[in-house]
Amino acid sequence: MPSKTDLMSGKTYKPKAISGFPEWLPETRLVEQQWLDHIRKVFESYGFCSIETPSVEEHAVIAAKGEVDKEIYVLERLHKEEGDKEARLALHFDQTVPLARYVAQHFNDLIFPFKRYQMQRVWRGERPQLGRAREFYQCDIDVIAQDTLPLHFDAEMPAVIYEALDGLNIGKFQIRISNRKIVLGLLESLGIKDPAPVTRIVDKLDKLKRQEVEKLLQDETGLSKEQTDSILALATAEDISAIKPANEVMAEGLSELSFVMDQLKHLPEHAVKADLSIVRGLDYYTGTVYETRLLDIPEFTSSICSGGRYDDLASSYINKNLPGVGISIGFTRLFEVLNHYDYIKTGSKSPADILMVLPSDERREIAAQTAQTLRKNGFNVEMFHSGSKLKRQMAYAEKKGIPYVWFPPFEDGSPHEVKCMESGEQSKADPENWSPVK
Amino acid sequence: MPSKTDLMSGKTYKPKAISGFPEWLPETRLVEQQWLDHIRKVFESYGFCSIETPSVEEHAVIAAKGEVDKEIYVLERLHKEEGDKEARLALHFDQTVPLARYVAQHFNDLIFPFKRYQMQRVWRGERPQLGRAREFYQCDIDVIAQDTLPLHFDAEMPAVIYEALDGLNIGKFQIRISNRKIVLGLLESLGIKDPAPVTRIVDKLDKLKRQEVEKLLQDETGLSKEQTDSILALATAEDISAIKPANEVMAEGLSELSFVMDQLKHLPEHAVKADLSIVRGLDYYTGTVYETRLLDIPEFTSSICSGGRYDDLASSYINKNLPGVGISIGFTRLFEVLNHYDYIKTGSKSPADILMVLPSDERREIAAQTAQTLRKNGFNVEMFHSGSKLKRQMAYAEKKGIPYVWFPPFEDGSPHEVKCMESGEQSKADPENWSPVK
Repeated sequence: MPSKTDLMSGKTYKPKAISGFPEWLPETRLVEQQWLDHIRKVFESYGFCSIETPSVEEHAVIAAKGEVDKEIYVLERLHKEEGDKEARLALHFDQTVPLARYVAQHFNDLIFPFKRYQMQRVWRGERPQLGRAREFYQCDIDVIAQDTLPLHFDAEMPAVIYEALDGLNIGKFQIRISNRKIVLGLLESLGIKDPAPVTRIVDKLDKLKRQEVEKLLQDETGLSKEQTDSILALATAEDISAIKPANEVMAEGLSELSFVMDQLKHLPEHAVKADLSIVRGLDYYTGTVYETRLLDIPEFTSSICSGGRYDDLASSYINKNLPGVGISIGFTRLFEVLNHYDYIKTGSKSPADILMVLPSDERREIAAQTAQTLRKNGFNVEMFHSGSKLKRQMAYAEKKGIPYVWFPPFEDGSPHEVKCMESGEQSKADPENWSPVK
Repeated sequence: MPSKTDLMSGKTYKPKAISGFPEWLPETRLVEQQWLDHIRKVFESYGFCSIETPSVEEHAVIAAKGEVDKEIYVLERLHKEEGDKEARLALHFDQTVPLARYVAQHFNDLIFPFKRYQMQRVWRGERPQLGRAREFYQCDIDVIAQDTLPLHFDAEMPAVIYEALDGLNIGKFQIRISNRKIVLGLLESLGIKDPAPVTRIVDKLDKLKRQEVEKLLQDETGLSKEQTDSILALATAEDISAIKPANEVMAEGLSELSFVMDQLKHLPEHAVKADLSIVRGLDYYTGTVYETRLLDIPEFTSSICSGGRYDDLASSYINKNLPGVGISIGFTRLFEVLNHYDYIKTGSKSPADILMVLPSDERREIAAQTAQTLRKNGFNVEMFHSGSKLKRQMAYAEKKGIPYVWFPPFEDGSPHEVKCMESGEQSKADPENWSPVK
């Protein structure tokens, strides 16, 4: 700690925000907590269990999954000594690699299908911009099975996500669904051997104009005009039932997609849409794929919640066939973007329902007892600890946004009274049997 | 992703636990969640608001607080380019430096006294051992005021902590309280100019024998036999009311300590104790200090919850006088130690209350609707998605520890029925009006 001399000489280091590492004031954090609590509650209501993994993985674990194009942070101990032999550790950049490692490592202790949710921070050293932080929360659900996983889980994912997002104040949104077998089948039928570069370009259809995507396909993957036309006709098709499958893979994809859509018909019409332009950049996905767009903020063209079906979760770590399907809410992205567009309405700066007034030092005991009774009945109660003027105590409740102020009996023998700060009404109350006026 | 060839050739990287980075199976994580939820609830019931800070601070922020003897992790971007000018970032090793920086940075947006809780992971590159992880949760509460903070907050801290810990299955525990002014006053009266090395040695009284501490004091700080005797007599005093203050500082400390103890007389006798051997190693603390010991696990001699009063939170960052008092539960330490001593009783591997049986593919819709009704009524319901034999579905509920199995109407027109897995009883039930038997 600095000495008093430092304080008096004014030698201070003025802190500032670190770009890409968001931090909120208490009133905004309260809303963030409510959102995270709601998402967790919905995940649990479908039987997903929580796991948390360390913030780090061994670099060898990440490397075993193949090349990573994400910007990874590795850790260095500041006082590491020469010759310290420790595995190189890196902060995880998603929750999928940790899940794969977790399932492989604990395989014998898990019951399959394994339904897990994970709501942790992840880190990417990318250039920060709106909706792209360097440290951010992701809220993931995945189901992992041994050998086979019923297609119904592909339909359960968007149903869960619909409920999770519908409880937040984010306006209208749309979960867009496709199946990679459709486009992979088409590419196969067109004689295209390496689908990855093609799907990575088609994935840009939501950001670039059709002509630009067309040009990229021809320039970068050497496709003919005819091939490009077929691919883009498919990716932008409006009426999916009219598509004629070119081969079995494509037929399977179309049939799976229509099955999933059929299972989701109880959701509002705008909330889910089959959209063949959704291909996801990752080769990882092998069937159903999801993206989610905010309909009321069309300027924001990135997906806030994406995922899909994969055949093979963890073969880098264990010799088992583990198919799965998962989806991930980019929570901090969503929250930051909605905050930017003024959707986050903050209120109170405190979780307290009630401020307990301290009439005088002599009345401290009755004030403390009353606070304790109210806490037992489920209320959050903050005690005012210094015997200040009543006006100052009320002003404090006002500034913190605490909705009720409680007056315990004063020296004059007055009864318990409560003031509602919004209406200004004050009335007698019994701490054993009090509930806020609706 | 690795190719199928890799899978077939068995080329896998076998993952293992990283020493010092704890990770739990779902059934243990469920208990950890219940504990964290309970602690959060108690913190909020006293009006503490949540904040979260980034996992990192600029190294300059940490350095401004003076030398740090903790093992800090710094971050490196793996693909950093030459000439990238970025502030050096380090993972936070506690939540006090981040709090000080937060309060200074957001000073004008906060209302004082500022009561905040913070439950995040922190990182220290120390050698891992039982109760000492490299990544662990801390649960902190602090109150920060401008200029003056009433002593009543020093008494509120242990009251909150008592409630938080009392709700967990950790056996008997004891919060030990002292006031650093008492020992600092004595040292002053003995003519000892530099108290820090002395208090750091006295702090070892719980780990070393009295003679060992005596020897250390004489050898390392050059104190006389007489000085050592006075200090150890004070630190091991049983009857605090019998202590004669040697000067005003000591008298103030004794008076503050007896005030705090007096405010806590509503707690069970074993739960709080005045103990002058508690001095805390940190010079940071200027008055009341706390430590907490597990009484039922005397072998574990470290404190699981510590803190104290400080005069000066943030003068390294802002030219304001900000006294505070705070306490921190070493959550992961506590959880790991109790797990080691078999106090953590795990049950279910899933948050689901009910497994919804799938009688056949034809009955999927009624099963899904029933699940949705039960979710609306507050139950967590997992659907069984593959049309397996009933026996297999029941076995799945059994293995996951899901307490109820629900049978929607079968093709034969049977009514809704629920089976309680523990009692084996099965009875008719109405999904709109069901509640579990007590």
